[in-house]
Amino acid sequence: MSKYIYGKNSVMDALNNHFPIKKLFIQNNLSFKQKLNFKNISYITLQEMNKLVKGNHQGFIAEIEEYKYFDIGTIIKDKASQVLVLDHIQDPQNFGAILRSANAFNFNYVIIPKDRACDVTPTVLKTSSGGFNGLKIIKVSSLLEAINFLKENGFWIYSSALNNNAKKLDDLNNFVLPICLIVGNEEKGISSTLLKNSDEVIYIEQFGTVQSLNVSVASAILMHKIKTTINKK
Amino acid sequence: MSKYIYGKNSVMDALNNHFPIKKLFIQNNLSFKQKLNFKNISYITLQEMNKLVKGNHQGFIAEIEEYKYFDIGTIIKDKASQVLVLDHIQDPQNFGAILRSANAFNFNYVIIPKDRACDVTPTVLKTSSGGFNGLKIIKVSSLLEAINFLKENGFWIYSSALNNNAKKLDDLNNFVLPICLIVGNEEKGISSTLLKNSDEVIYIEQFGTVQSLNVSVASAILMHKIKTTINKK
Repeated sequence: MSKYIYGKNSVMDALNNHFPIKKLFIQNNLSFKQKLNFKNISYITLQEMNKLVKGNHQGFIAEIEEYKYFDIGTIIKDKASQVLVLDHIQDPQNFGAILRSANAFNFNYVIIPKDRACDVTPTVLKTSSGGFNGLKIIKVSSLLEAINFLKENGFWIYSSALNNNAKKLDDLNNFVLPICLIVGNEEKGISSTLLKNSDEVIYIEQFGTVQSLNVSVASAILMHKIKTTINKK
Repeated sequence: MSKYIYGKNSVMDALNNHFPIKKLFIQNNLSFKQKLNFKNISYITLQEMNKLVKGNHQGFIAEIEEYKYFDIGTIIKDKASQVLVLDHIQDPQNFGAILRSANAFNFNYVIIPKDRACDVTPTVLKTSSGGFNGLKIIKVSSLLEAINFLKENGFWIYSSALNNNAKKLDDLNNFVLPICLIVGNEEKGISSTLLKNSDEVIYIEQFGTVQSLNVSVASAILMHKIKTTINKK
């Protein structure tokens, strides 16, 4: 997993979206006059640039800092009312897309598991279109422990099922706050242990020949419905 | 744009999802015994395989037929009641993801413009996860003419706006059938001409720091809301 973002547009985009950038590398013989609102810049040779990344960097490389995950206690300290749990999302594009929607619908606390799941990488930051800003991403060793911790602290746990042995989203006109929404892995959905420990299991009714939605699409539909239902109360 | 899909899993997936496959190429010295439900197979050498594609084909390449677009008259002939119009979607991943959701929510007729937009490519078919099956994709020279044709045939045109100078989706409790939903380009949204010719312009309220949703996410939220609202009547 590369820790670099490169190419002029991508690097500018990363700067504008306040990516956690450690260092910026700019090719020393470019006629680049733009003032950058960033201090730690190294001007290096094309040969040195090429050693850092293999792709077409166009003279611009940003080294991304490792994302600083938050502690689960933050949720309680901040009195969060909408938490999203991602049960082993694998694909960085899906992860980034979910963060973008989470930001839009105020699911500002996102819990991910430590193992077998996509981390916050430059691709994730990029796909989130700046959405990761304003979010607090929390990494935990055990999702089950995290859910139980939230339950002890008054959260109501909603899980999204892939099949229709659950409540139709469309039939729900009320959501209990503070709310925790769990969405599952691209292939397997949510683990049976987490499903068993949920207060409510819901599914999105579908009518086509393909009985599944992309996980980022499903997450967005759920978060949108929850947020707009809460707002009506 | 490659017309080939390659790699064992991708090719099997394409077969299972009934991609329009012209010809299948399998490396002639593989110990591959599985019976394939496909007639037109060429067994060729590794060297010949390598000439077809540059990537890691694992001995499996499928040549995809050009998608056979439908005529706009199909919509009237089939008495379609839900039509989706894509105003210059550029990204194949977005296009494919939209087709997957369109299938799920019965927007089985999808209109795209001839120029400056993503075509139905192998990437699109793949991202749609088989969703393109059961859809009829219609390519037109002028979206405005297509919209006017639909209006003459009794369709009510809804456009999705990027800003909030429009009706909140959440405030709509009724949709007129037959319905045509237009969603716009990733950057620019829907062209002003199409917006002017719409019967209703709607937007999805957002609450975060990033005031935009991915176009495939926005499309899915709209189609889901429309489909579930229609079903309640």
